[in-house]
Amino acid sequence: MSAIKGNAVVGQSGGPTSVINQSLVGVIEECHRAGHIDQLLGAQHGVRGIVDEKFIPLKSVKADLLERIAQTPAAALGSTRDKPDQAYCQRILESFKKHNVRYFFYIGGNDSADTARIVYELAKQAGHELSVFHIPKTIDNDLRVHDHCPGFGSAARFVAAAVMGDDRDNASLPGVKIDVIMGRNAGYLTAASVLARRREGDGPHLIYVPEAPLTEEKFLADVQAVYKAKNRCLVCVSEGVRVPGGQTWTETIASGLDVDAHKNVQLSGLGALGDHMADLVKKKLGIKRVRSDTFGYLQRSFPGFTSQVDSHEARWVAQQAVKWSGEPGKTEGSVAMKRVSDSPYKIELFLTPLSTVARETKSLEAAYIEGGNNITDAFARYARPLVGELPVIGTLDEI
Amino acid sequence: MSAIKGNAVVGQSGGPTSVINQSLVGVIEECHRAGHIDQLLGAQHGVRGIVDEKFIPLKSVKADLLERIAQTPAAALGSTRDKPDQAYCQRILESFKKHNVRYFFYIGGNDSADTARIVYELAKQAGHELSVFHIPKTIDNDLRVHDHCPGFGSAARFVAAAVMGDDRDNASLPGVKIDVIMGRNAGYLTAASVLARRREGDGPHLIYVPEAPLTEEKFLADVQAVYKAKNRCLVCVSEGVRVPGGQTWTETIASGLDVDAHKNVQLSGLGALGDHMADLVKKKLGIKRVRSDTFGYLQRSFPGFTSQVDSHEARWVAQQAVKWSGEPGKTEGSVAMKRVSDSPYKIELFLTPLSTVARETKSLEAAYIEGGNNITDAFARYARPLVGELPVIGTLDEI
Repeated sequence: MSAIKGNAVVGQSGGPTSVINQSLVGVIEECHRAGHIDQLLGAQHGVRGIVDEKFIPLKSVKADLLERIAQTPAAALGSTRDKPDQAYCQRILESFKKHNVRYFFYIGGNDSADTARIVYELAKQAGHELSVFHIPKTIDNDLRVHDHCPGFGSAARFVAAAVMGDDRDNASLPGVKIDVIMGRNAGYLTAASVLARRREGDGPHLIYVPEAPLTEEKFLADVQAVYKAKNRCLVCVSEGVRVPGGQTWTETIASGLDVDAHKNVQLSGLGALGDHMADLVKKKLGIKRVRSDTFGYLQRSFPGFTSQVDSHEARWVAQQAVKWSGEPGKTEGSVAMKRVSDSPYKIELFLTPLSTVARETKSLEAAYIEGGNNITDAFARYARPLVGELPVIGTLDEI
Repeated sequence: MSAIKGNAVVGQSGGPTSVINQSLVGVIEECHRAGHIDQLLGAQHGVRGIVDEKFIPLKSVKADLLERIAQTPAAALGSTRDKPDQAYCQRILESFKKHNVRYFFYIGGNDSADTARIVYELAKQAGHELSVFHIPKTIDNDLRVHDHCPGFGSAARFVAAAVMGDDRDNASLPGVKIDVIMGRNAGYLTAASVLARRREGDGPHLIYVPEAPLTEEKFLADVQAVYKAKNRCLVCVSEGVRVPGGQTWTETIASGLDVDAHKNVQLSGLGALGDHMADLVKKKLGIKRVRSDTFGYLQRSFPGFTSQVDSHEARWVAQQAVKWSGEPGKTEGSVAMKRVSDSPYKIELFLTPLSTVARETKSLEAAYIEGGNNITDAFARYARPLVGELPVIGTLDEI
């Protein structure tokens, strides 16, 4: 039994990453080699482009432009925050039928996997033969089943490097520095700041993730203790850091925040949390030099600084999705990575049903969190191969 | 007449840069070759370390560590925000006498040049033979006489790259994005965001510098016009952006801000300006997706992403300072760059009296500013050679 011949649609969804176009290019390349795919249509702005029938034919894009696009951060096709319901998914299916689409490759996170799942089910019910593959991407690294997600390694590399440099800055002009890192529910990206530590005494000295609720009292006591011992303190904190009970710190301090279609309160793209925490330290601890930075969108969009492993894997999972779409019996799933070993780092790909990845996310394992303010070596071993080479640092105390 | 033999002190001052250690290493290397310098003492935390007699002997640092230090952002010796008055400078002189210091190399901005000038004058009055050299560094690029300053090119490269990536992110998920860039009085660094434009339509679409006062009305009208035409808008704005009359936007919105020893109000290390501008756009223009990022300290401390030209020049000016210190008649000055040509890019070094660089700073030339919201091609020609290679970008509209 060979795969049905027809057209394919590829789309990109959710918050972009700096390697999401590696996945797009992986799909395009592999579709050239795949006998079962006629046209490859790029949906502009994800599901929105599918229902609006805004497609770009992608097979004709020249190889040298493809290579440049692969290195470009953010979704080359455009992304979307639309969260399709059943009716919206029905419109997606109608568009697919109209354009004889038999293969759908959707690059995104858990919400995109859920959209993919619904569309697959609707097509099956309607008797429209359609294979649906989810290609993972998220800097949050929070997809269930997946060892890790393309996009995370590069964002983590950016964070680790930024914190390495910032730690030197903080040592130059001592004070308290608070770096706010992306991550609404999952602390993986903030945890990656631990990779910035090279030697005893290096920052970050305190790391706070959403998984470990944090009271104002503990935060201040932690900072005071570090500051007393070192005359400086570098703090890395997730934008999604929570008070006990579940509310985010940001929700407790800010009003009039944006809420998106997924009912998420806006945490990124504003500096309120960092300013608030810095203010607390100034006022309650009486420390004079206190600064905060919110790393913001640079974490997912900074160009020319991606992790090589991450870039490679982002393309690989996409190529594999197209390959599997041509194999009998493989009609739906998310292309996942399984870690065979840490050292040497080795990954195998496997296909996991969309339902196992859709909707729910996973949190940073409890074993990676220490004392509510630190990240373990076990996490560093997990994350280091994904991030790759970090910048060279030298200090005068190494004389 | 040959130079007096004695010890030398090197110090680093003010806000660090990502290449300030290239200058430190340049001094160390050249002191090895210089016959007139016995010991080279590194002052910890600038002038503070001189008066506290906290010195590190630097001639013994091994070459491989020196190379790592050269690549490390932020002041390896530690920096200071102390702004010495006459009495403080007198204590510096006493320390120099005590340690037989005959050469003082001070890496810093205009304030450091002023300190260097005062110490030189005091030494002359006291009959203590002392040569004083200012080695320029500032990401603000605001030193008078100097064509440009070491530290600027790397910070500008970071800004240009960040904006290139952010522009793609903004195109992926359209809305209004506001990027706040360092620069209290001088708009050079914010102006460097213009280098992010590769093709017609690319952001940044609006660029605001402190030199062009900006009313709330003009800001909102500008954003509305761009958003109407493009369905998105990327704004780059200096942290020091001013309302007509001289007050910064930050001063008009924030209270309880830090004031440093130089009587500067804290503008960096907080997100208030970006949040305020984003809020304005949301509320007054009714645009839903509005985000801001404050690039913060990453601009001066991000490692592994420096400009090659900038790294080279930072070391070169420092080496030249030590060389000139051994030449007859050269007893004080700031090592400045003069641009011989743009293309091919060619620089010559010269020594300018400390008084010509001390205290006052320079602003972005009026000819580089266009319509109060844009930066000219002439500026791009000026800045491009300093920044060097920028990341590769490719977009699907290039098909």
